[in-house]
Amino acid sequence: MSVSIFDSFLTTGDMIAVFDDAAIVQAMLRFEQALAAAQAEEGVIPAAAARAIAGVCNAQLYDIPALIAASRRAGSLAIPLVKELTHTVGLYDKECAAWVHWGSTSQDVVDTAMVLATRDALALIEASLARLCDSLLALAAAHVDTPVLARTLMQPAQVTSFGWKVLGWTAPLLRARARLREAAARALRLQLGGAVGTLAVLDEHGDAVAQRVAHELGLQTADAPWHTQRDEWVRLGMEIAVLTGSLGKLATDLALMAQGEVGELAEPSGQGRGGSSAMPHKRNPVSAMIALAAAGRAPQHAAALLQAMGQQHERGLGNWQAELAEWPPLFIGAHGALQALNDAFDGLTVDTARMRANIDALQGLIFAEALSIALAAAIGRPAAHAFVETLSQRAVREGRHLAELLPEAIAAHDDLRERCDMAALQALFDPAVAAAPARRLAVRQLAQLRSQLRQEAASSTMESAR
Amino acid sequence: MSVSIFDSFLTTGDMIAVFDDAAIVQAMLRFEQALAAAQAEEGVIPAAAARAIAGVCNAQLYDIPALIAASRRAGSLAIPLVKELTHTVGLYDKECAAWVHWGSTSQDVVDTAMVLATRDALALIEASLARLCDSLLALAAAHVDTPVLARTLMQPAQVTSFGWKVLGWTAPLLRARARLREAAARALRLQLGGAVGTLAVLDEHGDAVAQRVAHELGLQTADAPWHTQRDEWVRLGMEIAVLTGSLGKLATDLALMAQGEVGELAEPSGQGRGGSSAMPHKRNPVSAMIALAAAGRAPQHAAALLQAMGQQHERGLGNWQAELAEWPPLFIGAHGALQALNDAFDGLTVDTARMRANIDALQGLIFAEALSIALAAAIGRPAAHAFVETLSQRAVREGRHLAELLPEAIAAHDDLRERCDMAALQALFDPAVAAAPARRLAVRQLAQLRSQLRQEAASSTMESAR
Amino acid sequence: MSVSIFDSFLTTGDMIAVFDDAAIVQAMLRFEQALAAAQAEEGVIPAAAARAIAGVCNAQLYDIPALIAASRRAGSLAIPLVKELTHTVGLYDKECAAWVHWGSTSQDVVDTAMVLATRDALALIEASLARLCDSLLALAAAHVDTPVLARTLMQPAQVTSFGWKVLGWTAPLLRARARLREAAARALRLQLGGAVGTLAVLDEHGDAVAQRVAHELGLQTADAPWHTQRDEWVRLGMEIAVLTGSLGKLATDLALMAQGEVGELAEPSGQGRGGSSAMPHKRNPVSAMIALAAAGRAPQHAAALLQAMGQQHERGLGNWQAELAEWPPLFIGAHGALQALNDAFDGLTVDTARMRANIDALQGLIFAEALSIALAAAIGRPAAHAFVETLSQRAVREGRHLAELLPEAIAAHDDLRERCDMAALQALFDPAVAAAPARRLAVRQLAQLRSQLRQEAASSTMESAR
Amino acid sequence: MSVSIFDSFLTTGDMIAVFDDAAIVQAMLRFEQALAAAQAEEGVIPAAAARAIAGVCNAQLYDIPALIAASRRAGSLAIPLVKELTHTVGLYDKECAAWVHWGSTSQDVVDTAMVLATRDALALIEASLARLCDSLLALAAAHVDTPVLARTLMQPAQVTSFGWKVLGWTAPLLRARARLREAAARALRLQLGGAVGTLAVLDEHGDAVAQRVAHELGLQTADAPWHTQRDEWVRLGMEIAVLTGSLGKLATDLALMAQGEVGELAEPSGQGRGGSSAMPHKRNPVSAMIALAAAGRAPQHAAALLQAMGQQHERGLGNWQAELAEWPPLFIGAHGALQALNDAFDGLTVDTARMRANIDALQGLIFAEALSIALAAAIGRPAAHAFVETLSQRAVREGRHLAELLPEAIAAHDDLRERCDMAALQALFDPAVAAAPARRLAVRQLAQLRSQLRQEAASSTMESAR
Repeated sequence: MSVSIFDSFLTTGDMIAVFDDAAIVQAMLRFEQALAAAQAEEGVIPAAAARAIAGVCNAQLYDIPALIAASRRAGSLAIPLVKELTHTVGLYDKECAAWVHWGSTSQDVVDTAMVLATRDALALIEASLARLCDSLLALAAAHVDTPVLARTLMQPAQVTSFGWKVLGWTAPLLRARARLREAAARALRLQLGGAVGTLAVLDEHGDAVAQRVAHELGLQTADAPWHTQRDEWVRLGMEIAVLTGSLGKLATDLALMAQGEVGELAEPSGQGRGGSSAMPHKRNPVSAMIALAAAGRAPQHAAALLQAMGQQHERGLGNWQAELAEWPPLFIGAHGALQALNDAFDGLTVDTARMRANIDALQGLIFAEALSIALAAAIGRPAAHAFVETLSQRAVREGRHLAELLPEAIAAHDDLRERCDMAALQALFDPAVAAAPARRLAVRQLAQLRSQLRQEAASSTMESAR
Repeated sequence: MSVSIFDSFLTTGDMIAVFDDAAIVQAMLRFEQALAAAQAEEGVIPAAAARAIAGVCNAQLYDIPALIAASRRAGSLAIPLVKELTHTVGLYDKECAAWVHWGSTSQDVVDTAMVLATRDALALIEASLARLCDSLLALAAAHVDTPVLARTLMQPAQVTSFGWKVLGWTAPLLRARARLREAAARALRLQLGGAVGTLAVLDEHGDAVAQRVAHELGLQTADAPWHTQRDEWVRLGMEIAVLTGSLGKLATDLALMAQGEVGELAEPSGQGRGGSSAMPHKRNPVSAMIALAAAGRAPQHAAALLQAMGQQHERGLGNWQAELAEWPPLFIGAHGALQALNDAFDGLTVDTARMRANIDALQGLIFAEALSIALAAAIGRPAAHAFVETLSQRAVREGRHLAELLPEAIAAHDDLRERCDMAALQALFDPAVAAAPARRLAVRQLAQLRSQLRQEAASSTMESAR
Repeated sequence: MSVSIFDSFLTTGDMIAVFDDAAIVQAMLRFEQALAAAQAEEGVIPAAAARAIAGVCNAQLYDIPALIAASRRAGSLAIPLVKELTHTVGLYDKECAAWVHWGSTSQDVVDTAMVLATRDALALIEASLARLCDSLLALAAAHVDTPVLARTLMQPAQVTSFGWKVLGWTAPLLRARARLREAAARALRLQLGGAVGTLAVLDEHGDAVAQRVAHELGLQTADAPWHTQRDEWVRLGMEIAVLTGSLGKLATDLALMAQGEVGELAEPSGQGRGGSSAMPHKRNPVSAMIALAAAGRAPQHAAALLQAMGQQHERGLGNWQAELAEWPPLFIGAHGALQALNDAFDGLTVDTARMRANIDALQGLIFAEALSIALAAAIGRPAAHAFVETLSQRAVREGRHLAELLPEAIAAHDDLRERCDMAALQALFDPAVAAAPARRLAVRQLAQLRSQLRQEAASSTMESAR
Repeated sequence: MSVSIFDSFLTTGDMIAVFDDAAIVQAMLRFEQALAAAQAEEGVIPAAAARAIAGVCNAQLYDIPALIAASRRAGSLAIPLVKELTHTVGLYDKECAAWVHWGSTSQDVVDTAMVLATRDALALIEASLARLCDSLLALAAAHVDTPVLARTLMQPAQVTSFGWKVLGWTAPLLRARARLREAAARALRLQLGGAVGTLAVLDEHGDAVAQRVAHELGLQTADAPWHTQRDEWVRLGMEIAVLTGSLGKLATDLALMAQGEVGELAEPSGQGRGGSSAMPHKRNPVSAMIALAAAGRAPQHAAALLQAMGQQHERGLGNWQAELAEWPPLFIGAHGALQALNDAFDGLTVDTARMRANIDALQGLIFAEALSIALAAAIGRPAAHAFVETLSQRAVREGRHLAELLPEAIAAHDDLRERCDMAALQALFDPAVAAAPARRLAVRQLAQLRSQLRQEAASSTMESAR
């Protein structure tokens, strides 16, 4: 595999294949073939040359390790590949060989090959992301009514709806889908500029050739060669990094909720998944682990892309090469994270009883604010606050539930005794009541997100129908 | 100043003021004031309370260093500020004090204050960026016909048009403007979620209150509280990082072209600018220096934002706080870079003679490819290539210009002697001819970019006329 | 304050003061004063000049905001400061003014000033680190016998000793102390090289002057000017980053153990510490928060220092300036984290009952491996493993404790019934027994670390006695 | 290959092999074999088991892609490997199979395997670094007398000695060697802690087993298991990052000096090295390119290691796994850079005539400061300064050399005419004279560095003789 053992463990075979040595070399050859075909159609090179070139643009004909070794001396992968391609064409026809790579330069080949590989990478990410969004929306729908602790600064805070929490994970993923498409539309552009980005050799044929090459490869042309202006390309990388960040947020919550002492969620187990030979009780959150690893690394890969932007003059020295090497890891990490989370959500255990128990364990203290507000109507906010504060301290001291202490405290308080509806007060301690505001928000956003998805699906169907 | 001496040296006073302690505190108070007003209008709190709160929402009333000291213990800037605000309102009216910050939480205040400050920061960046784009377009227009060396891997490569090179710097900045606006429209949203993002206290008034607060502050509401879903916010940060990367690319080229041995560009001098007390001849590229410093730092600040995305549950522990601290430096660096480059381009020296001399110093070798292609028409590509290779080696060996050696070499070659048009061949060595393809691209893109700018201006005029 | 409001909230006033504008300017003036004194003693400049310079090397005499504004144009803080210093000396004596900054360059002043400030910063860190180590060793000593859950991949794993866990936090901090001293000894060196690092103007007096300046400032000289060779300096920064990483590890564990559902540790509360106005039950881990924020940011600051190492020729353009700006944040973050953790450990609540309860809640499953090993002696490993597996599944299914199910299962098993010592088996479920191996390791390492500290203290006493 | 095509292009086959899948699996098996042998010797497991395990600890027996696939589900490479190893031992002897991996845990295997691979990686780096240091010292020795422009802020500043400049590159590399050895001695330690770092299963045999395993693998034991305390390990990574930074500094200067317009240095050409098919004159600095790519990436890999330090409790979730994946790239990049620079310095062209020409092209202005100081002795510093300033301006205006204008200007100045030694003044314009201070520093440091190297070699010989 073309990634280290510790990388491949964190990703998918499909994504490794996209950026595999042979895949990159083949994509480079696709560029050379498309270039020759386009030039032949425009009359820039002989049709025979284009045919001869097309005949040997097959990565299996070339000794890839030898190409890599030669590229270290040459300073570019394209130089030895073009040399070998020229040599191979020349075995059949010397004249045709002279037209290999005509008017082009190393960066044209390499950048366009990366665009082609990236398009494949994005297709994998798009599919995995769609599946994850579907799972999450279904999970949210199933749990709009499930109360769960909301936690701030890693401390229990109040009650929310688990469905609302799940929608909090989902909405950024739907945004990521939309943004990725926008960024891809801008970044997946043919690179064709010749030696210094002026298309000098092709001269007045430049535009037409570029259009044909782009069409052949299913790409758009760029407004101008982007050899050292990498902004749109880097933006696409940033989108992957942001997506990975949102997956990391989700995985953080998942890992926290799956802790033994919390026990609200559990990743699926069985069949060699997340077990421990030494510890039979363990059910390790390996999906969260993979997503967290990706989220811990993506910021650095993103930084490397940004750092590489200062490419000198008409081709960068060191920075372009660094960018190329830092590009695949972002996609490799993101797809690993997505698929791991898909595995997790395909068999996620949601323990709603435990969610309820975790709320109950807090002795009603998380309802103190609501209680205070309710009592304020009767005795004013300062008195209500003081009353609840005293009661809360007693609950902590005696290890009892606030709801349990309340009746006698109310009874002992002259003003409250008369003015309070005990039943209404006790309802404040009902987690379902406490989760109601979150539930309302969840119901509304769920409808919005579903409608948005339907529209996207419809418009993408229409597009593909054209 | 609220940045270290080595930061303030690299930015502008205007941008420092945007994120100044007092500015942030004032923005927090603006939120509290707008919140109270909105709640009063919706009947959630008494109108008197909103008036009382409005009366003391003035940063000058508060001891900011004391607030900061207290915030270290409290774990949030909002907690001591709200406490002091409550205390101050209470000096006038105890009852009203109880309604300060009603239904809100620390993160609502702090995030919204950052949104307000960021809007101001973006206005500064927008203005500086517009000015820089104008300068660059004018410079490009003035130099579409100026031949200059194109350089790849930091070596002279071929000839291009200086105007085309300048457009290479400009187009990413125009793209950055457009993308910044999009990202800002998505990110500059009111944060209002209450304790855990459910607007529990405001309940059915939540939406209406949020709409009013947003309107009062000139913001849009968000689809959902974004307390721990920072994707749109981080994307805005990434846009600043990408912009800074494009400025770094520009500054890299500027610094390289301003080297003594290259001498094609020079930053303005005089009035304490870029001089050296010890070395009277020096004219240091201080604008490039500032932009390069920003470009070297922005990737790390961007990484810090991405790293902070994994915010736990309903409020992050440590990561939200890290994000807040890493946010201003991105804007501070970008504005420093923009203004520095504006200074540079306001008085840039372009030495076209030196550009020409640098081309001439290469003894015509950069025209070897063009020569080879021209000769191929007469004697086929392999023979032409061999001929030019021999001639080039002789030029290097004898330190003579290829154009000088050419006539006698042609004369000595039986086939070429008869089939070549010497004048046409000599024209290949004319830098203006060599720059023609670049010139053509430049003319076209210049027109495109100007038309795009006119459209943007028109649509923004229409928008503000509505 | 010379840091943003969101930075100052995460650090200490002491550390802010170290890198304050006035402190840096004063350190620059200290360099100029020491340089003049040394040169006068070596007869390079008149003694009167040194005296005149010394008389005005007081930061309070200068308009620092004006210096910063001028430095933006000049490209260096030193240029306007030297100009103002020269001007100020000249007010008293024109001749003397000519000797200000003699033979030196901007980078000499600025780098040496940073060395002086950094020495102060390290003293603060050293003191805070010593205090934290002491607290942790005392805590470890108090809890070698306290069983606590060990957790792997965020899941309960086995039982360890809380003292051993605390020593795991402590040892890296003691290592950090030792390494910081080594790195500081190598990095805190005088910078004195003149315009291009050759001491050209001072010529044969160079060495002697450098020795005297260094002595005056309490520094060592460097083997060679380090203006663009920043390796030792950056290594010191890396040590701070590694220290911060170790603090982040500690804070991670602290935050996890302080979660409501775990409840084993709690940061001190009271007096505006970690409370929440809306939620009276909350006791936020604000110390962990500050340390986690520092640990999330330090890697990026470290990366920025490493990135800045490629400084061109004899003075970097942009990268040196970036390094200067990225340097203070590392120290600012580290000291904030240290002091926050000191606050936490000064009043830490350790709930040993909860530690025990968390073990008990796992129904004995974490002792399954130990049970299996014990039973293997009687019936072989495969049979023992199968027996325990079945029993564990039953425990999970029935929600009962393994120790409770064991007697009847043993009684029902022909081989085990006869060969097992039930008392010995039941002892396996005693957390204290399970923690014994960790206890033994803890006792030994505690002795080692204490002895190491005593030796360090002794040798540092001897050193200061010399 | 186990790295992507764009990574392998930037490194060496030797280093790729060190971290290859098969190499890592073999190192894991070496650990298992050594563990079993040690336990057998201590009587913890049967000798037959150790022999049976040893017999199948050969990576070629295992299906590595299948192990990787299984590891994705398991959450660790060790789990499927141990399972397969157990299975394979069991094919021969069921009883022995039960003792595979006895008392150990996944992290013990994986961390120790990484230590073994890293030791090999460091040996490669050590050898390449030694060779580079030798080349550089020889180059420095050859050029102590060669004047070359010193440049600050990318502008010509003064004259230095090229030998001194080369020593500026060399000294950090010698420091890196020494520091790497220190860091390696501290970091290359056996990991052996069992399930949670307490060696619970091995109990009182723990120490003796650890000593034997370490001895068998040629490692030291650690003071304590370092499963989640990664400080010493990360420090080793930081040393590689700092080394790479110093190589990046060297490569920056090399690339700048190799620019066509500067032409002072050139990397070797020929045999497919650094050529361009399209541009016959090009001689691309591919070694500098590779080193710059490494230096642009190492800071991010370093940041990723630092970021991963906050490993939870007794085994990290996501961060440990991220660290493992980010570790090899640092070594892969560093070795690529070292070998590339070795290639460059093996055939470096130093153009001393061009160095001289670049000095001469500055019209003597870089000697203005020296001239001013010399004249000050005659007419005082202010008058001398004014005289030189006027003369410099004239030189710039008229495009003439300062030395050429000087005689008539002196002749026209009443005071100077009489008091100046024209020959002495003209000597100031001699680059060799200007380079003399740098030459003196170079001679001294060269002697120091050589002596240091001799001592190191002697002590390492003595060590290996023991």
